[in-house]
This record gives sequence, structure tokens and C-alpha cells, in this order.
Amino acid sequence: MLRRSERLAAMAKMLSDRPYCVLPLAEFAERFGAAKSSISEDLAIIRSVFEKMGLGRVETLAGAAGGVRYIPIVSPERILETVQTLCQELSDPKRILSGGFVYMSDITASPALMSTVGEIFATRFASVAPDVVATIETRGIPIALMTAKAFNVPLVIVRRASRATEGTVVTVNYVSGSAKRIETMSLSRRALQPGQRVLIIDDFMKAGGSARGLVDLVGELRAETVGIGVLVETDQPRQKLVREYCSLIVLDEVDVEKKLVRVRPSDWVAALSSGREQKTLH
Amino acid sequence: MLRRSERLAAMAKMLSDRPYCVLPLAEFAERFGAAKSSISEDLAIIRSVFEKMGLGRVETLAGAAGGVRYIPIVSPERILETVQTLCQELSDPKRILSGGFVYMSDITASPALMSTVGEIFATRFASVAPDVVATIETRGIPIALMTAKAFNVPLVIVRRASRATEGTVVTVNYVSGSAKRIETMSLSRRALQPGQRVLIIDDFMKAGGSARGLVDLVGELRAETVGIGVLVETDQPRQKLVREYCSLIVLDEVDVEKKLVRVRPSDWVAALSSGREQKTLH
Repeated sequence: MLRRSERLAAMAKMLSDRPYCVLPLAEFAERFGAAKSSISEDLAIIRSVFEKMGLGRVETLAGAAGGVRYIPIVSPERILETVQTLCQELSDPKRILSGGFVYMSDITASPALMSTVGEIFATRFASVAPDVVATIETRGIPIALMTAKAFNVPLVIVRRASRATEGTVVTVNYVSGSAKRIETMSLSRRALQPGQRVLIIDDFMKAGGSARGLVDLVGELRAETVGIGVLVETDQPRQKLVREYCSLIVLDEVDVEKKLVRVRPSDWVAALSSGREQKTLH
Repeated sequence: MLRRSERLAAMAKMLSDRPYCVLPLAEFAERFGAAKSSISEDLAIIRSVFEKMGLGRVETLAGAAGGVRYIPIVSPERILETVQTLCQELSDPKRILSGGFVYMSDITASPALMSTVGEIFATRFASVAPDVVATIETRGIPIALMTAKAFNVPLVIVRRASRATEGTVVTVNYVSGSAKRIETMSLSRRALQPGQRVLIIDDFMKAGGSARGLVDLVGELRAETVGIGVLVETDQPRQKLVREYCSLIVLDEVDVEKKLVRVRPSDWVAALSSGREQKTLH
């Protein structure tokens, strides 16, 4: 039998480890050897402190399927702070590669940073309630996985080549915006069910060719794209091959001669600081 | 100013969100407007309940670089339970694909399952203290990312083809054990520093060709492989191309005719139930 203070520490960890997962009060009551009324009081304390400290929301659900769940919500201030840190990192001229590319594999594979980015996308797309997060290999996988974790939904990885280990696959061709080449992407038939709501997450968008391909592929499997989130988009071309998407960072320019990378927070992120979007976040 | 009960909930979440990360006591004291002595008492409570409930270890580090950190430790019982669940899932005959492959992309991309597997590898390899986790694209990335997250170290993704977005790369050829073909893998020079301790994590090992290639690549960059962990290995061939590695699951046989997949917990996992290895885990 544990004291209240001990229960609070354990419950806070258990809730936040499993976002969007409904945990029955009875389970806590049994595990801690406490009355359900005590557990309810504990949850009220956790809810209040998480809110005060900007650590996310704790929701109690009534009824037969009732229980409690943790919803990760990143505050506008922390979104801004994270995006500004990323912008500063990305604008380091040492990142410029020949061909005018910017090295960002260390950032897109950083577990700590991508955890936060995943929670930012879960905050941004909370209202669309996806059943699945999808991405195309390779560099977007860590961001997409962390987004899927924050939503407690499966991740689906679309492959650039079809593999025997994927079983029957559906393949679509798409025009790679950057290389202006016809490329192929494929997904196992088993990975998506008709009618599922799919959130597409990727690390980078130039013309939007891969995002367009992903939307088409999702459609081929009779599932529905409910949102597209990318970490970095390029300012040019303005006209992307997908209409609605949300980026966190805009890459304006890479000047190899002057050793300059110009990046900035996206319009969505910038709007957070003016407070215009704060309502939709809470 | 928060009450102790509130501080405990918030601190438990903050610690467990950032495993292996040393958080100075002064930071907590400031953030919560509490005396350092109160924070110390809070931490003692969190440490004790995490231990009782098998939620991991909370360590206090003295001295100038002092503070507190959370070490994820999965108990032997929970490792067994997780591996048994995975074995049951994998032995579903519906997973058999033509060619005798077993479909496992849904498992290797499950955020909840791979979080636990990542913490299991962090438990298993705690003593080797890696600086970096490395994997080869694609299917091993979620496991490797979650392992890197549990260790609070960067993830390094080795590519099968070199990309312009990776800058200067080092490339090695290796013999793919399954296909008996010469294949190529490459890694950005920027991704690994000489002397870094690398933990290699992958989803699957047959002959061990990719693991061998990864070890060679790590060596080329004058870093050091300190451990190899794989989710599933095949029973045959017995003789792998790497000597020391740890798997969680052994795939004994896929019988396409009889619609049978035979899998079992690896020797390391099986030994946990006999209690032989429990000491090294605590």
C-alpha cells in the first residue's frame, strides 16, 4: 500500500508514458490498493499541476469505457522555443554541403528533439484524430514515429522499393519535385485499412512530390489523408503539389558562396507568438 | 508555489521524459519555488516508489556536475512478458508471406511496443554506456530510435545508398547473408566521431551480414562497436558473421505448407526467468 505522494509520482509517469491511452480507474485502484475515490482525487492533483506547468492535459472519461488519459499538449511558448532552437541549429554555415544541400540528419535523428517535434505535431493535429501516421523512408521516420507515439497510433512506413518482406504491395509513381524524376513508392496492403484516417509526416518538402505521392497511395488503399505535417519546407517553389499542409520551419535560401543558410519559423509557428492561434491549442 | 504532492507528479514526469539526462537540483528548486532540501526529499520518495513499482531507477549524483537522473530499467518479468507477447504475435500464421517471409513491419513500427523494446535494450546494454546508437535503414529505425531515446544519445542511420544530403560519406561493401549478394552501405563522415562508443541495433539477423558491415563501417570511422542488439534472429545459420550480439527472439522455422511460424524467446531472455541474469540487471 502506497502513500498518496508515492501514488502521484507513479501515476504521473504511467499516464505520460502512454499518451491517448485510456487507463481505467479500477486498474489504478487495484494496482495501488487504494479506493477509486482516492484515485480520482490523485488525478485531480495531477491534472492541475500538469496544466499549471504546461506538461499536457489529463482527461477523465466517464461511462463504461471510462478512465483517464494523458494528452500531450505543447504550449505555444515551448513550440516557439523549440522551433527557434532548430532554426539556430540549421543556420549554422558548417551545415552547407556541396550542391547547396543542408546537412540535417543529426537533427532529424535526435531522439530528444524529435520527441518534442512529435508532440508538437500531435498538438497541431489533435483535432483531426488520426488512426495512423504515415511517412516515406528514411529521414522522416524518427519524426513520424514520435508523432505516432504521441497519438498512440501505429506508424506506417512507405518504402521506395517494394520488398519481399512486405507481402502484396500497392505501388504508385510520383514525380520527385527536386530531381524531376519519376520515382516509385509502395506500401504493404496489410498496413492500411480502408477508411482509416491518415496523418502524413515528413522531414522535408520542396515541391511536395513525395507528399502528393503519399496522398495518392493512401487514396489507392481507400484510406483518407487528414493532415500533412513537415519539419522543414523550402520557400521556393511557392506552389506545392499538395494544398494543405503544416510546416514548422521555412528554408528561404542557401547561399554556398556567402556561406549562409536562411531559415525562419513557418507562418503557423509565427502566428503562435501573436497569440492568434492560441485558442485552437487549448 | 506548489504543494509537495503536486511537485512529485510534475518531477516524476520530467525525470522520466528525459532518461539519462542529469537535471540539477537547483533547476527543480527554482522552477518549483522550493528549497533544495525539499526537492531532495521529493526525489527520495520518487526513487522509492519507482523502485517498488518496477518503473526504473532514480539516481542522485553528487558534486559540481551533480543532480538527478532517471535510468529506465525494465524488470526481468516485464522483459519476459513483452517477449512472450511478441512471440505470440509473430507466430500468427496469417503473417506468412510468399517466399517464407514473416510479415513484421507492423510490429517493428509500433511506437508502444518499440518503446518497451528500446528500454529493454537500454537495460541489457546499460553497462556498455554507448555514446551513439547506429542502425541501417529501414525497418530497424524505430527500435534503434527508441533505444537511443532510452539512453539519451544520438541515433545514426546508415544508408543503403549514398545521398547528396549526407555530405561526404564512407562506404563499405558487405555480403548480404540472405541474398548472398554484395551490397553497399554508407554513412556521413559527420555522423560519427573517432573513439565514440557505438551500440548497433537492428530488427532482424539471419547470417549477420548487415551487422558485420555496420561493425566494419564503425571501424572505418575509428569508432568502436560496444554491443549489437537485434529483435529477431533466425536459428539458422547458427554461425553468424558477428560473434557477440544479443537477440530477444529466435525464429526457428517457417513452414509455408503447414502454415506454421515457430518462434521462441532467445537464450538471454529465457535465462532471465531462471533468475540467473537478474543480478546484472539491478
